[in-house]
Amino acid sequence: MTEPEKFPAKVYKDTVLSPLFEGVKRHHWRYQMRINQASAVLLAEGDLLGTEEARAILEALDDILRNLDLDRLEYTGEHEDFFFYVESELIRRLGVEVAGKLHTGRSRNDIDHTVFKLALKDRLAALFDTHLALIDGLLAVAERERETIVVAYTHGQPAQPTTYGHYLAAFIELSLRDVDRLLHAVRTVDLSSMGAAAITTSGFGLDRKRMADLLGFADAQENSYGCIAAADYATGVYSALKLVFLHAGRFVQDLNAWTGFEIGHLHVPDAYVQVSSIMPQKRNPVPVEHLRLMASLGAARCEAVLTAVHNTPFTDMNDSEGEVQITGYDAFDTAQRFMPLLGGLLDASTIDTAKVRRHIDEAGITLAELADSLVRTEAISFHQAHEVASKLARRMIDGGTTLTKIPFPEFADIFKAVLKRPARLTEAEFRKFTTPEHFIAVRTMLGGPAPSALSASFKRYRRDLAAKRATVDALRERQRLADDLLAREVARRIADG
Amino acid sequence: MTEPEKFPAKVYKDTVLSPLFEGVKRHHWRYQMRINQASAVLLAEGDLLGTEEARAILEALDDILRNLDLDRLEYTGEHEDFFFYVESELIRRLGVEVAGKLHTGRSRNDIDHTVFKLALKDRLAALFDTHLALIDGLLAVAERERETIVVAYTHGQPAQPTTYGHYLAAFIELSLRDVDRLLHAVRTVDLSSMGAAAITTSGFGLDRKRMADLLGFADAQENSYGCIAAADYATGVYSALKLVFLHAGRFVQDLNAWTGFEIGHLHVPDAYVQVSSIMPQKRNPVPVEHLRLMASLGAARCEAVLTAVHNTPFTDMNDSEGEVQITGYDAFDTAQRFMPLLGGLLDASTIDTAKVRRHIDEAGITLAELADSLVRTEAISFHQAHEVASKLARRMIDGGTTLTKIPFPEFADIFKAVLKRPARLTEAEFRKFTTPEHFIAVRTMLGGPAPSALSASFKRYRRDLAAKRATVDALRERQRLADDLLAREVARRIADG
Amino acid sequence: MTEPEKFPAKVYKDTVLSPLFEGVKRHHWRYQMRINQASAVLLAEGDLLGTEEARAILEALDDILRNLDLDRLEYTGEHEDFFFYVESELIRRLGVEVAGKLHTGRSRNDIDHTVFKLALKDRLAALFDTHLALIDGLLAVAERERETIVVAYTHGQPAQPTTYGHYLAAFIELSLRDVDRLLHAVRTVDLSSMGAAAITTSGFGLDRKRMADLLGFADAQENSYGCIAAADYATGVYSALKLVFLHAGRFVQDLNAWTGFEIGHLHVPDAYVQVSSIMPQKRNPVPVEHLRLMASLGAARCEAVLTAVHNTPFTDMNDSEGEVQITGYDAFDTAQRFMPLLGGLLDASTIDTAKVRRHIDEAGITLAELADSLVRTEAISFHQAHEVASKLARRMIDGGTTLTKIPFPEFADIFKAVLKRPARLTEAEFRKFTTPEHFIAVRTMLGGPAPSALSASFKRYRRDLAAKRATVDALRERQRLADDLLAREVARRIADG
Amino acid sequence: MTEPEKFPAKVYKDTVLSPLFEGVKRHHWRYQMRINQASAVLLAEGDLLGTEEARAILEALDDILRNLDLDRLEYTGEHEDFFFYVESELIRRLGVEVAGKLHTGRSRNDIDHTVFKLALKDRLAALFDTHLALIDGLLAVAERERETIVVAYTHGQPAQPTTYGHYLAAFIELSLRDVDRLLHAVRTVDLSSMGAAAITTSGFGLDRKRMADLLGFADAQENSYGCIAAADYATGVYSALKLVFLHAGRFVQDLNAWTGFEIGHLHVPDAYVQVSSIMPQKRNPVPVEHLRLMASLGAARCEAVLTAVHNTPFTDMNDSEGEVQITGYDAFDTAQRFMPLLGGLLDASTIDTAKVRRHIDEAGITLAELADSLVRTEAISFHQAHEVASKLARRMIDGGTTLTKIPFPEFADIFKAVLKRPARLTEAEFRKFTTPEHFIAVRTMLGGPAPSALSASFKRYRRDLAAKRATVDALRERQRLADDLLAREVARRIADG
Repeated sequence: MTEPEKFPAKVYKDTVLSPLFEGVKRHHWRYQMRINQASAVLLAEGDLLGTEEARAILEALDDILRNLDLDRLEYTGEHEDFFFYVESELIRRLGVEVAGKLHTGRSRNDIDHTVFKLALKDRLAALFDTHLALIDGLLAVAERERETIVVAYTHGQPAQPTTYGHYLAAFIELSLRDVDRLLHAVRTVDLSSMGAAAITTSGFGLDRKRMADLLGFADAQENSYGCIAAADYATGVYSALKLVFLHAGRFVQDLNAWTGFEIGHLHVPDAYVQVSSIMPQKRNPVPVEHLRLMASLGAARCEAVLTAVHNTPFTDMNDSEGEVQITGYDAFDTAQRFMPLLGGLLDASTIDTAKVRRHIDEAGITLAELADSLVRTEAISFHQAHEVASKLARRMIDGGTTLTKIPFPEFADIFKAVLKRPARLTEAEFRKFTTPEHFIAVRTMLGGPAPSALSASFKRYRRDLAAKRATVDALRERQRLADDLLAREVARRIADG
Repeated sequence: MTEPEKFPAKVYKDTVLSPLFEGVKRHHWRYQMRINQASAVLLAEGDLLGTEEARAILEALDDILRNLDLDRLEYTGEHEDFFFYVESELIRRLGVEVAGKLHTGRSRNDIDHTVFKLALKDRLAALFDTHLALIDGLLAVAERERETIVVAYTHGQPAQPTTYGHYLAAFIELSLRDVDRLLHAVRTVDLSSMGAAAITTSGFGLDRKRMADLLGFADAQENSYGCIAAADYATGVYSALKLVFLHAGRFVQDLNAWTGFEIGHLHVPDAYVQVSSIMPQKRNPVPVEHLRLMASLGAARCEAVLTAVHNTPFTDMNDSEGEVQITGYDAFDTAQRFMPLLGGLLDASTIDTAKVRRHIDEAGITLAELADSLVRTEAISFHQAHEVASKLARRMIDGGTTLTKIPFPEFADIFKAVLKRPARLTEAEFRKFTTPEHFIAVRTMLGGPAPSALSASFKRYRRDLAAKRATVDALRERQRLADDLLAREVARRIADG
Repeated sequence: MTEPEKFPAKVYKDTVLSPLFEGVKRHHWRYQMRINQASAVLLAEGDLLGTEEARAILEALDDILRNLDLDRLEYTGEHEDFFFYVESELIRRLGVEVAGKLHTGRSRNDIDHTVFKLALKDRLAALFDTHLALIDGLLAVAERERETIVVAYTHGQPAQPTTYGHYLAAFIELSLRDVDRLLHAVRTVDLSSMGAAAITTSGFGLDRKRMADLLGFADAQENSYGCIAAADYATGVYSALKLVFLHAGRFVQDLNAWTGFEIGHLHVPDAYVQVSSIMPQKRNPVPVEHLRLMASLGAARCEAVLTAVHNTPFTDMNDSEGEVQITGYDAFDTAQRFMPLLGGLLDASTIDTAKVRRHIDEAGITLAELADSLVRTEAISFHQAHEVASKLARRMIDGGTTLTKIPFPEFADIFKAVLKRPARLTEAEFRKFTTPEHFIAVRTMLGGPAPSALSASFKRYRRDLAAKRATVDALRERQRLADDLLAREVARRIADG
Repeated sequence: MTEPEKFPAKVYKDTVLSPLFEGVKRHHWRYQMRINQASAVLLAEGDLLGTEEARAILEALDDILRNLDLDRLEYTGEHEDFFFYVESELIRRLGVEVAGKLHTGRSRNDIDHTVFKLALKDRLAALFDTHLALIDGLLAVAERERETIVVAYTHGQPAQPTTYGHYLAAFIELSLRDVDRLLHAVRTVDLSSMGAAAITTSGFGLDRKRMADLLGFADAQENSYGCIAAADYATGVYSALKLVFLHAGRFVQDLNAWTGFEIGHLHVPDAYVQVSSIMPQKRNPVPVEHLRLMASLGAARCEAVLTAVHNTPFTDMNDSEGEVQITGYDAFDTAQRFMPLLGGLLDASTIDTAKVRRHIDEAGITLAELADSLVRTEAISFHQAHEVASKLARRMIDGGTTLTKIPFPEFADIFKAVLKRPARLTEAEFRKFTTPEHFIAVRTMLGGPAPSALSASFKRYRRDLAAKRATVDALRERQRLADDLLAREVARRIADG
């Protein structure tokens, strides 16, 4: 054992306290100062600060805010953390009798979690903007490409034709639900912890809802123990954000398949294509791969926050504070890279219509509709129609031909063999029933790709998107109003003092 | 390469198809049959089945339902899966002309995901019952123990006194939010996939909302591609359920600490205590450990579902079907063990009041309120009061004494040294201000432990719980009404035919 | 609070004790009995049991082993667990004076972890058999297909030709390293915990290494606290097994791509292909998808074991015992399904040579070798050669032609434009240098696809595989010899008594 | 769709290419340059570069190395990445005829993975130093405290006395195995990918083993496809490192319990203790909590790397390159904070012997040895002795007394009641048999806490540690020799040219 050190031990300072201090400087100090201002206002309103005391404190806070030189402020260990540094600055300016009153009825515990919530709210607001912009952009592409035919896959195989707009609509609808999940998670973030003090509130009768108003929260979180222990404002957000990455990553896997050389249904323009240093013919739409990676890492970063609180006590603890919160911000940063890149890439990319059509024909993926059409035109059962279509598919594969080239008599023969009667279908009908255009046109049911159905869907998505936009704007507007309110109260009390 | 086999290859049958078939027999076949009935009704309503055809099919389905001997039904490979087995049974009874019509405008894709949603809805309904019962039970304990004093910890150290009721309220409030998250996740599960067919709907103009009604869904999920590809009904549920385990596991870690020999604040009765095979003095409240483990495994089982879809294509695929769905059910089973055990344990356990009081005194955790009281009675700043209390704490620790035993003059001396004037506080006040009862009594703020505040909280939790109960009941009632509706339609059409 | 119950509380019995008892019946009881026998032998050797006592105990154990009717043995709560049930059976037969000696110097703690290690060793032995058989099978396919040309991809794009054998060799080499990792993990499993007793050994001077020998372990694990607390025998195994799934899952993703309709390089025979219920043309090689899913779930099941011990105390605890161990076995079961299916599928599948050749030509992926060949034949720098090849690629793409069809003069023109001199290359050389055969033939470097290089690799893999086979056989042989030794000692002492 | 952009699209540059370029500048560029030098040497040795060409290239590389101003080097998009930037610098200096030869027989694929391996090797070397220093420090504490008595827990309850040295030895032994796992993982990192080129090697007959030697690798990785696709060098390392965090985090949970107020067995000095802003009595040994958090985040960061490659194709791809590699480095950084803090904290902390002794007595945890001693002195069965001790424990608990205070006659009575005869044990023996000193002294078995056993263990750990130190030194020495070799070859060829 070496000579006993004073606090903080060098290794503790180097590995924990200094990095945490830098984190506060980078991410949190302004929120802490805002809470200091709000505390002064609240204490003054509750007569726990005299008019002059409040004025002095608010002025000193202003002075600190204006003169703080973050670049030169380094962690020395003299003050345990940024909170104590500010307190010491206040005491230096105002003396302990006045400065010492600011911390009445509060604790670093409620302050910290309130800071984290404010920081998270700002990140969420920015994320919603980016997310809604992405969805808006995708919707624009979908609307533009509402009639562009593509191949829909199941089990890795071409399955049916649909439109690019219809396909994108599936991801848009999922993304709208992802936004819903995030908006639901916001509810808990939007509850102020202030007034909980260390764990049990205090005996100062502070108005926790007023404090929430001053800081722009929807309300105060009720149980004071929960205010500093529950941490589900963080787990809830990162859990929902993880799903965003998980779901978008699946969509990206489709893009990866679609941009492969042999499929090639989605053409990525040169601005997004990298070359090989030794394979001259290569065209690598690498952004798709980066998107997949970002989605994975984004999800893993969200999960890190959940891992951090796993099997920890249900209490105030560092496992849900500074370092883990900042770790979580990386997930937001990843989303802020992921979403614009995905949006930009999709906006710039186009469907290779010729290739799509060729593969539709080679894969014979309109056969399902031929079967359906036979049900309607021939009044046979689906199972019988399916049998006819299956036999036709077999003939097509064995003959090395495609659906558009197969001679009509082959169909006629098969039909007769299965149904023991000739088909009523004409060749013209047969050809029509096997086009992708017909396939799509008849799918007018709710959620289908036919123009009427798809337009109705787009209309609903636009409406949903606008509603979400309004919700997000309302959240931001509440924050703006609260910031104004606090600024006014601060200014008035400085002027009044 | 060995001799080519016929479908299914033996190894494929043994490793995949048979296990899947057993899974359908155990978990899903009744839902599949219900969908078959609803399809028949819907097709009849849409004139895609004649009255007699519908009657015949429904009667045959009934017959299958009544006579299916699951124990003797083994996977042979003759039919690819259970779906085809039932189809073959229908054809055997009715011929392909009639039986073959049942599958009009649908696919195994939309059927499967609808089956999974129905199964998940039933599991969720059962989970809500158990979860709400747990919360109700905890609330009863909290109300019973609203005045029982306990030690609240931060950073692993005794921090402040509060009441057991107040502490439990924190977990109750968190649990109510956990239920909220699950209820939000239900919204997506509650959307029918039927009518999406393979991916793009069909040209049969089926009424997807009517189908949703017949099956008890809130609505039809819109985009047909999304209906079979999005899978966020599953990821959303397991993501929310994972948080339940994660949060409850933290609460369990507290129980683990509280039931340790040296702390011993929570007394677990013999019915939950195991012995040691070689340490005669040991009293192991092992259920707490099992709860922690179950919470971890429950969370991991939820995560398994998310892992399964990570980096898969956005399409219909097995990675979101049978095997993974059934894997997910394990998480529900874990919850159904975890919650009753947690509830039973807490109902039976009691606070060791004497031990709590001794530790409160030894740890001096009422000092924070002494400081606060000094602020109010001596009109000094919190910082100054905190300094007095800190010096008193130091004296107490150095003197190896406790807060109730420290002589009053020691306090008086310290006060004078810090404030340069004698304290106004009397010894009686000093003693009172350092009791846990006083500590709690003054904390009347929103969310605090004082009786008035806590009662108000309980009232709100009861109201919230009742509202959730009503929501859950409404979900179940909707399902019950739909089941009745379907049964009536089936019966009527069998009778009518 | 309800009326106090006796141990075990009903809910505890239902949710924990009964399931655990069933788990012991299914997985562990025979190991427990083997340890009982070994304990009796060891105590007799150490004179802690008299000859007659040992005989009586061993005979009684034999009697229990022979007569135990597992199907009828249900958990009643009379005995805390299976261990106490056996103890009671011994006492019933022999009285407490004799029966009570068997548990000298041991505890359920060291017994349990030794049981788990024995169970894990058996599972690992079975896994090694399956894993080595898979690698052996893949190697046979690779040797068979050493000259079959395939397309190697980077970034999702066709990159260069290689042979199927060379491609498979990459996965084989990785799999051999995966086996290495598992074998390394075995070392910790192969250390006996017996003698650690509860945590600190005992004062009975038992020979822990002899006990390890009797049970077939390589050695005794040293520190007694670690014997019951470290649990890295489990985390080490599941961490290594998780990598097996993770790596194999990536290989499966390639199979998924290669079996897609448009790529279609790998032909899966009908025995492994499923149909669509409504898309007659579809050929779904679904086993590939199931393999991907199994790999994901297998990995998640391994991770569950790691999650279970995260943030638990470093001590004997249930979080590393019965329930979690059995959860881990699911991962082994998954591997025992995954590996045979993967092996069977690959053995049965074949490369579609025509399709491969067509895509090689269309994608122009031999161009990299043309550039290399130019370096050698024209004595120009690689960068210049790459420029020529790049321009040729551009011409090919713009002209909608392929590498085999592009007129030689186009190459000559480009060469001259870049190098300011005519190429020496003849058309015959040009054609040869752009064939996949040439591409592969010149790649004779270590680890390359040329026949000589690949044969050398295969030889090394065969040698490595044989060495691993020998290691695994030696592990099993040690266990067999120990089982024999124990059986002999038991028989001798029963006879001697 | 907006106007088509040139490469790189702004959003792609901002979200991917610029960040990647910064990553290369921060972490990888020197390794890339080292490979460039080694390539030039290898090509010269293989006569693929003339003497003068090699000299010119090596001199130009030297010039670039000396003059590169990283601070001013920003990503402009003019060159796709750092590799192409260097190539353009070479061409600017030497012309394409000479400069263009450096990239003969290689690709960014093999270069990149070789860079990542070199970077990982350096990080691993630094980690081994820190890890071995931690173990060495823990061993010093363990040796110092070999006789300091502590309480060992099972299931959260005091179980048996042992020594602090014995307890620490458990973690030391585990840590040594953790180092073993990391060392095993190094084997794959220590295989050079150079020569694999894009995927299939090249036709230039380069000596891959010589290249490995020049770069300090143990050998060349064989299969060329695996060289750029397998990525198990990364998954293997992060999987092993994750276990380090997982295991150490469990040890930290013990420290957390031991430093709690009520247990208080481990005294953390002031240099590591933080205060409360409002609870004057609090002494928070917060570093323990930060250690727990770092262990969790470290594990999550390792897992992020595994998540990134999950369900990706088995190919060269960005999901295993720049961004994910750098993400992995965060886990190393976390370890470099975690280990020194853990070491420093344990070096500075001490056991509170008085508190330990008091709890041993109150908990009666020496009773297990009383039972064992009765077996030996009274010649009764363990079960009987355990019954006596259990009854004594019950008496002690019911009487509210402790083991040292319980009157001897109470023991005598119980013994007689159970065994139907008086005990031979004297009171002096009874008192001795229930001391922790006796408890420990008799536990001389392998791995036990008695001084002889523990000293033997320490000797083995010291030997093992020295062997590992030697292994790590040999790894570093090989690298140093290779660096020298390369520097010599470079210098010689520059001088020779």
